[in-house]
Amino acid sequence: MRPSGRQMNELRPVSIETGVSIHAEGSCLIRCGNTHVLCAATLEERVPPWVKGSGLGWVTAEYGMLPRATNTRMRREAKTAQSGRTQEIQRLIGRSLRAVVDRSALGERQITVDCDVLQADGGTRCASITGGWVALRLAVEKLMKSGDVKSNPVVDHVAAVSCGIHGGRVVLDLDYVEDSEAGTDANFVMTGSLGLVELQGSAEGATFSRDEFGRMTDLAESGVTELVAAQKAAL
Amino acid sequence: MRPSGRQMNELRPVSIETGVSIHAEGSCLIRCGNTHVLCAATLEERVPPWVKGSGLGWVTAEYGMLPRATNTRMRREAKTAQSGRTQEIQRLIGRSLRAVVDRSALGERQITVDCDVLQADGGTRCASITGGWVALRLAVEKLMKSGDVKSNPVVDHVAAVSCGIHGGRVVLDLDYVEDSEAGTDANFVMTGSLGLVELQGSAEGATFSRDEFGRMTDLAESGVTELVAAQKAAL
Amino acid sequence: MRPSGRQMNELRPVSIETGVSIHAEGSCLIRCGNTHVLCAATLEERVPPWVKGSGLGWVTAEYGMLPRATNTRMRREAKTAQSGRTQEIQRLIGRSLRAVVDRSALGERQITVDCDVLQADGGTRCASITGGWVALRLAVEKLMKSGDVKSNPVVDHVAAVSCGIHGGRVVLDLDYVEDSEAGTDANFVMTGSLGLVELQGSAEGATFSRDEFGRMTDLAESGVTELVAAQKAAL
Amino acid sequence: MRPSGRQMNELRPVSIETGVSIHAEGSCLIRCGNTHVLCAATLEERVPPWVKGSGLGWVTAEYGMLPRATNTRMRREAKTAQSGRTQEIQRLIGRSLRAVVDRSALGERQITVDCDVLQADGGTRCASITGGWVALRLAVEKLMKSGDVKSNPVVDHVAAVSCGIHGGRVVLDLDYVEDSEAGTDANFVMTGSLGLVELQGSAEGATFSRDEFGRMTDLAESGVTELVAAQKAAL
Amino acid sequence: MRPSGRQMNELRPVSIETGVSIHAEGSCLIRCGNTHVLCAATLEERVPPWVKGSGLGWVTAEYGMLPRATNTRMRREAKTAQSGRTQEIQRLIGRSLRAVVDRSALGERQITVDCDVLQADGGTRCASITGGWVALRLAVEKLMKSGDVKSNPVVDHVAAVSCGIHGGRVVLDLDYVEDSEAGTDANFVMTGSLGLVELQGSAEGATFSRDEFGRMTDLAESGVTELVAAQKAAL
Amino acid sequence: MRPSGRQMNELRPVSIETGVSIHAEGSCLIRCGNTHVLCAATLEERVPPWVKGSGLGWVTAEYGMLPRATNTRMRREAKTAQSGRTQEIQRLIGRSLRAVVDRSALGERQITVDCDVLQADGGTRCASITGGWVALRLAVEKLMKSGDVKSNPVVDHVAAVSCGIHGGRVVLDLDYVEDSEAGTDANFVMTGSLGLVELQGSAEGATFSRDEFGRMTDLAESGVTELVAAQKAAL
Repeated sequence: MRPSGRQMNELRPVSIETGVSIHAEGSCLIRCGNTHVLCAATLEERVPPWVKGSGLGWVTAEYGMLPRATNTRMRREAKTAQSGRTQEIQRLIGRSLRAVVDRSALGERQITVDCDVLQADGGTRCASITGGWVALRLAVEKLMKSGDVKSNPVVDHVAAVSCGIHGGRVVLDLDYVEDSEAGTDANFVMTGSLGLVELQGSAEGATFSRDEFGRMTDLAESGVTELVAAQKAAL
Repeated sequence: MRPSGRQMNELRPVSIETGVSIHAEGSCLIRCGNTHVLCAATLEERVPPWVKGSGLGWVTAEYGMLPRATNTRMRREAKTAQSGRTQEIQRLIGRSLRAVVDRSALGERQITVDCDVLQADGGTRCASITGGWVALRLAVEKLMKSGDVKSNPVVDHVAAVSCGIHGGRVVLDLDYVEDSEAGTDANFVMTGSLGLVELQGSAEGATFSRDEFGRMTDLAESGVTELVAAQKAAL
Repeated sequence: MRPSGRQMNELRPVSIETGVSIHAEGSCLIRCGNTHVLCAATLEERVPPWVKGSGLGWVTAEYGMLPRATNTRMRREAKTAQSGRTQEIQRLIGRSLRAVVDRSALGERQITVDCDVLQADGGTRCASITGGWVALRLAVEKLMKSGDVKSNPVVDHVAAVSCGIHGGRVVLDLDYVEDSEAGTDANFVMTGSLGLVELQGSAEGATFSRDEFGRMTDLAESGVTELVAAQKAAL
Repeated sequence: MRPSGRQMNELRPVSIETGVSIHAEGSCLIRCGNTHVLCAATLEERVPPWVKGSGLGWVTAEYGMLPRATNTRMRREAKTAQSGRTQEIQRLIGRSLRAVVDRSALGERQITVDCDVLQADGGTRCASITGGWVALRLAVEKLMKSGDVKSNPVVDHVAAVSCGIHGGRVVLDLDYVEDSEAGTDANFVMTGSLGLVELQGSAEGATFSRDEFGRMTDLAESGVTELVAAQKAAL
Repeated sequence: MRPSGRQMNELRPVSIETGVSIHAEGSCLIRCGNTHVLCAATLEERVPPWVKGSGLGWVTAEYGMLPRATNTRMRREAKTAQSGRTQEIQRLIGRSLRAVVDRSALGERQITVDCDVLQADGGTRCASITGGWVALRLAVEKLMKSGDVKSNPVVDHVAAVSCGIHGGRVVLDLDYVEDSEAGTDANFVMTGSLGLVELQGSAEGATFSRDEFGRMTDLAESGVTELVAAQKAAL
Repeated sequence: MRPSGRQMNELRPVSIETGVSIHAEGSCLIRCGNTHVLCAATLEERVPPWVKGSGLGWVTAEYGMLPRATNTRMRREAKTAQSGRTQEIQRLIGRSLRAVVDRSALGERQITVDCDVLQADGGTRCASITGGWVALRLAVEKLMKSGDVKSNPVVDHVAAVSCGIHGGRVVLDLDYVEDSEAGTDANFVMTGSLGLVELQGSAEGATFSRDEFGRMTDLAESGVTELVAAQKAAL
């Protein structure tokens, strides 16, 4: 039995509430169990220097956590530098979103997706990708409605889920308790058609085998399929 | 007529939702119109160095804004240093909350109140004080229930509201549009018994007279009275 | 009796020595009792980005304290970041000076007023505003003499003084000893015609009443009147 | 044909020269083709705060690149903050090395492995792990010879290699040219017994399939086998 | 003829005013022509970690420049990091002062000498050393009067002067105009008995010969002799 | 007898290996005994802002040390700011190299010489200058071969060596053991024709006399002569 009473292949309840910001071009509040992430997409008619003049757009992401999103209060990042963990996560979110964007269809404009964790209970980077995609998609919709963009630059869904080996068994969508006890922890980012975008597997303590990794991939495919359905329902 | 259609002495609709965090010892989401601030109080059994051994407690506050809380996206503070404005605001919140805390009754422990603006439409520092007090009060309640603290260290309410001179008229609770057009802008922090805790008045363009400041104080007293009622209702 | 033996409504001796820098366009050394501030105005034929092309000028201020300006040596700010207190003060000085500047008459140029505290004994921000105005006025004089500016962009005096409640009595111009013991501390920035520019009142311990605030304002008006006279004498 | 003329499953020439530092407790210069990394292990009789009193040791890694290790000179990191990429890499190296360390056998001491890239031609993080293990192993040997440690805390080899999809074909050990053209890039960290320690796969442009990932894993297993042999030869 | 009309071997007028700070344990304002430096010595009953328990004292210096001490306003160092130049200078001042201090006679206490340039016209590091010594000596006097220190830990004078090659001729005590035109610039720090403490010579453009360096040393000896006399007169 | 068994006037064995980088326009690995410095010159077709439009080139240097170049591991500079010592050294290297460069012959381009200490045993700044000159010379050679530069902008050799007073005797080329015990330590930077470029002498403990300084200069001249011969042999 998992600590939460869930089945091995059972996601936490997912809800995606859109339009939560009066300012952002696209926004949603995604809740995966007790993990809550506010995603806000900002559209700007400018691109970073290395893109300028290329005719291509740019999509980037930033990630943050409120100091008391966690069980123990963390030092506010504005008072330190961004941690390595934070930078690693926001680079991952950015690459994941860009993987499904046709930057030429977007044209020379930039979309920044801010993913701010209001409450954390494991899986914040995955929730950020899944919710971030919704915010991005809504911002792009606005752009298409205004006629600034002709064809949809978001060419597929992208969603993410974690798997792990907990108590010797392969499980889907780890919450904080499982995550801190798991021997292996892996994040899978996939498109709507289950193409692999990003894989990150990491052993803590024991190593893992190719077979175990294969079974985690099976679970991830079923999880991402459900998350993509939730994205569709939210739009 | 005010841009929002409100009366001169009319607050924006206030709502205070408590218990919004599974982790914080006290928390609320305060909404003053479109200004939304998440307030979370963290209780720690330690005090800053300059308090150690004094038998007194400490209450402090931190303030932040999500990058897209505003109409135009701001640079994430984790990527810069905290701005002067941010520091000024969080010092104000901290002083305001300490003004109603009996630090000796609290004992040698620290409460940090994080005020994070999810959406901004003027008056974020005032909403932070009003909501921050609720989070603080809830954390203290927990402390009293556990018996760690005998008498209530929160000896009065504290709440805050802005007034200003807009279009030549003295008005209560400025939203962003009024704030950016106002000639004078003042923040009033008062206790439940309308004692003055902090006053900040600032002229932009024309100076203001003692008489005008008096009329702003009248409005502020009525506004704070309503906010204190909302705090009571929320608990 | 006040610790210094002064009357309730008595300023410390004020002296303003002008032309203390061979480099600055305007400068003075202001002494309010043992508080000594070197004020230097720098004129530059450029403006910050957000003013460019507007035809308007800009006036800004910076504030610093030598490490041993105080009783106990402070860490040099060049080795840390500027503290919140420093930023708060320099923002206040800047707003105060701009309140009496006709930015259109100044034209697209910037004046930076550096206020560096050589010795501190309470009231450094007030002395900086009063002395900073003199440095600013001298720099503008140079500009007018050269013909670069036709009409005087400094449209009024501005000066500042603190009041407080010490030993239950309302007193003018707190020195360090009084300031650290005072229950309430307020800073008043006013023009030569006693229009209010900035008000900052803060309770430590007990709150203060509207009546007490009124009596502090009375004292402040008399104090500012004397300071403006000193400014006039210095020019 | 690959740009370098290598076979699909052919590593670049590997050389590992040990004892290159008179100061470090263990050191080597690893060369994987034109990628050269200086690895130096430092042994200290202290541990980070979160380990203190646990009886366990700690192994950590730091990664750096000389400014002209690359084709175009990069800004020296001492003049900026460490980049997200740098932090991501050094966290990976640290986790990889800890995966084969029995921290209880090591006892309360810390080994820091510095991996400094003298010359870069792709695959610097993999070379750092493979060479870093050798430096770590040599430092531990010293510790065992002195009798400070009874049983070998390094319980297995660990080595790393990249694979990718270049020109539609799955290839082993990408150099810089291939890496910048590859559609998919994956890093595999494995033990001497080919247990998986860390997996990182990332699509650029097209996604990759489970089948392609499987074929990359095949190549990685053969590559790691060769690298482990080179580690054994070097000791 | 020198730009200032001085003889080749003529110092600028030197004045050293002591007791300029009500707070510092020792202080002076040194004026070498238009170069004015405020020197303040702070005595603390603690030492840096690397001295603790040794029975020895520590003397250190910090150097700063007000933003408008120079002809063109410099960015305030509190807003940047300390520049390389600043650090180089304060390290030099510290070494120079320590050269004449018997750290064992001082006992485990620290004296920090702050040298803040109020106005600069060349030779600020030399003026800081000469004036810093006076502040240090006064602080030590206090210590001896109180009986905390038995024998005088300041065993000799130390003073500094610059020489250079200007217009082909060797000159003493360069002001800013000469310094910026000089081909060679050298700083000499010597004790009262003309022992060499620090030498720094630097060519700009043409190199200098041993003979020229010898003639600069001659001038420096005469300059330091005069400065030591001024120190004696000031005490 | 010196700790190393060397004669008073004996350099450590010097070797200069050129072409050690496939990327840099000029490079060498200089070994002075156990002090090893990797020098890499980068040529860029741009100049710093203050040179732009002058028709002159710019040569600058940066200096770094790997964390375990020293006996005890130092904190990586990328995690702190550059230390004062580092900045002082790289400013010295830059000035030394520019002293032998005809910036007009170089034209508006910049050469940055990175000197990274792989292993330190005293004298790293001197080795950096001597080796940095070789890297610079090789980069310039490339420029001349390509015809971009007509006449050789490197008009002379420049090399550096330390001298000191150790055990009462004047010695050449201090290693770490001697350096830490020496009463006086001086660095001499000279051209191939033995013109003085930079002198830095510093007493630790006892002061030094003009006579001693003269004897150190004698040794330095013989040392630089040998180093220049080694530079010639390397090219």
